Amino acid sequence: MDEALKQRIEFLKETDKMKTILRQNWVIGRSRREDDAAHSWHCALMAMTLAPYAKPEINVDRAVKMLLVHDLVEIYAGDTPCYDVDVVKTQETREKAAASKVESLLPEVQGKEYRALWEEFSACETEDAKYAVTIDHLQPLFLNYFTDGASWQTRTVSKAQVLKRNAIAKETVPELYPVIESAVEELYQKGLLS
Amino acid sequence: MDEALKQRIEFLKETDKMKTILRQNWVIGRSRREDDAAHSWHCALMAMTLAPYAKPEINVDRAVKMLLVHDLVEIYAGDTPCYDVDVVKTQETREKAAASKVESLLPEVQGKEYRALWEEFSACETEDAKYAVTIDHLQPLFLNYFTDGASWQTRTVSKAQVLKRNAIAKETVPELYPVIESAVEELYQKGLLS
Repeated sequence: MDEALKQRIEFLKETDKMKTILRQNWVIGRSRREDDAAHSWHCALMAMTLAPYAKPEINVDRAVKMLLVHDLVEIYAGDTPCYDVDVVKTQETREKAAASKVESLLPEVQGKEYRALWEEFSACETEDAKYAVTIDHLQPLFLNYFTDGASWQTRTVSKAQVLKRNAIAKETVPELYPVIESAVEELYQKGLLS
Repeated sequence: MDEALKQRIEFLKETDKMKTILRQNWVIGRSRREDDAAHSWHCALMAMTLAPYAKPEINVDRAVKMLLVHDLVEIYAGDTPCYDVDVVKTQETREKAAASKVESLLPEVQGKEYRALWEEFSACETEDAKYAVTIDHLQPLFLNYFTDGASWQTRTVSKAQVLKRNAIAKETVPELYPVIESAVEELYQKGLLS
């Protein structure tokens, strides 16, 4: 077996760990916490399904690819709860190191390709990355909406924090934004957000 | 909120169930059985990562999309263990009905689009579908290779059955096929396959 194939097999084995990295969110029905693999899949499907609301200049296929690899860094950096100020402080450093580790698993060209997708997602400057980030931020809100704010029960989260995190949707999926705003208002009125 | 958006939200809520549909396979490390959402993600990533071995006429992006939706029918039809002859007999009928149900959740155009991807995958006639099916059949073998045949411990599976199921790889990823064959031989020599 050649070296490149060995590396790809090792990478695919290593990425299996995504199935056991638990996130803050609960699946609908609250039978278990969501893991990174399932989250990545749900985000990819959400990006495809909400494509009709994406601005025309967005390449949804590229956003889907970004979403499929965006959380691989968590194999080494762990899940960073987005509203935990202290943990978020060290996120960039931890994830950059993790991204280098992920990249190093693969043959050079492919490692660079996945790294570039992750860097683009993280920088959140291109149209495709902005759409992918919108989906990545919307998906946990979606789960919280259908689980009565399950992930907000261990940590107080405010309406302002959730709106700020989802503000990017105003630009990427303008038609959806009022729906997001009213869902957040509903959760706030129910006392699930401070 | 318009009807199409309501339908898409309902669809995305319903598809969350994929995270709790357990498959026959175990994740590497055997901490838990794999679910359909995680399997779909791992297949999509595998399709991207093994793209350099795919025949040039294969459109990997389309295969990725197929893999993201290929198991949605299991929300209604359940997981069908591929080596359980009795259950496989009713698979087509159950999954056709489930595909209609999935399609009906979405606005017409999008429902038809996802249905067409699933039909193409199931028919396994186009180049893209053959590649997607190759990955879908290879991924459980991959997990079994790294878990000492965990999913074969509740049901006797033969070397011939696994080779038959993965024979499609000869055509779609010819360079990989000898590696698959030798992995199966190794599992057989270990007594994990009959």
